[in-house]
Amino acid sequence: MECLEKTTIRNEELQKKIKIRLNKIEGQVRGVSKMIDDNRYCDDILIQLSAINSSIKSLANQLLTLHMHSCVIDNIKNGNDAILDEVVSLFKKFQ
Amino acid sequence: MECLEKTTIRNEELQKKIKIRLNKIEGQVRGVSKMIDDNRYCDDILIQLSAINSSIKSLANQLLTLHMHSCVIDNIKNGNDAILDEVVSLFKKFQ
Amino acid sequence: MECLEKTTIRNEELQKKIKIRLNKIEGQVRGVSKMIDDNRYCDDILIQLSAINSSIKSLANQLLTLHMHSCVIDNIKNGNDAILDEVVSLFKKFQ
Amino acid sequence: MECLEKTTIRNEELQKKIKIRLNKIEGQVRGVSKMIDDNRYCDDILIQLSAINSSIKSLANQLLTLHMHSCVIDNIKNGNDAILDEVVSLFKKFQ
Repeated sequence: MECLEKTTIRNEELQKKIKIRLNKIEGQVRGVSKMIDDNRYCDDILIQLSAINSSIKSLANQLLTLHMHSCVIDNIKNGNDAILDEVVSLFKKFQ
Repeated sequence: MECLEKTTIRNEELQKKIKIRLNKIEGQVRGVSKMIDDNRYCDDILIQLSAINSSIKSLANQLLTLHMHSCVIDNIKNGNDAILDEVVSLFKKFQ
Repeated sequence: MECLEKTTIRNEELQKKIKIRLNKIEGQVRGVSKMIDDNRYCDDILIQLSAINSSIKSLANQLLTLHMHSCVIDNIKNGNDAILDEVVSLFKKFQ
Repeated sequence: MECLEKTTIRNEELQKKIKIRLNKIEGQVRGVSKMIDDNRYCDDILIQLSAINSSIKSLANQLLTLHMHSCVIDNIKNGNDAILDEVVSLFKKFQ
């Protein structure tokens, strides 16, 4: 993964892996839509929504790890410390 | 909204409203996939993932409110207090 | 536990149990203060703060369960359904 | 703030500021204990517990910001990239 100014070049394999996870999340959302069609019980639907939240957090954690070890390191080594405030801001958004 | 045993009958209008929100969430997820194709910056992608989380929580809150005022009330009035433990369990899942 | 209008009568044993947990949480907070005196490493302090958050959530979950099986049930059986909106509001606060 | 190996030297003024915030949080916890003595309504107590959680998160965000701009930068400039995994681990703990 390579970090240019506000662009992140991911190799084909990584892009593919991330998109597989996003496709699964999309499938989970469509699954809930189907549950609504089928008049499924509210509690089951809410459990499913919390599962989607978990999938998103898990993907976010993976992307943050990659981001830290590429863009964040590169920027700090180049003296652009402001990138750390972006990370703190993400920290708050996911709290 | 009517609450049968582990089935929730929603009227057509409500079904439609919920599905519109789910379609929007599905669109948000597809949007992130597109951002991966476009080599968009990690931080922007993570912000977008946290926005999806917020959409899901907001939908969950609406569904929980409806659930409370139909299934939960009906069950308690019929002496089935165990439904409250389901609600506590959801409380933990979304914490 | 008995639920009067906006007052909750807890028996002595329950009061004692809850206060023991609150004392432990108070001790955890004092422990962090001591860590600041000792110039302890930021990451260790942050881990400790997240542990306090977990203790608070765990106590909140216990109190919510008791609340559900006393005040919430009583109020619904007396036709005061508005108490459910209080629960949804708590749900959002702890999300 | 100065970052030694697993020790963080904070100047007197910063120590004082952090301890004032911790004292306030300790006071909030004692306040909940007093509410239990006074048989205060569960919902009010739970709202208070969520307020303590918010105080802790807010302090954690401040400490993380300081940590980022001292220990994290120093470590990365010295080639110790492993510190970023600590940050990701905190990210998960506060999620």
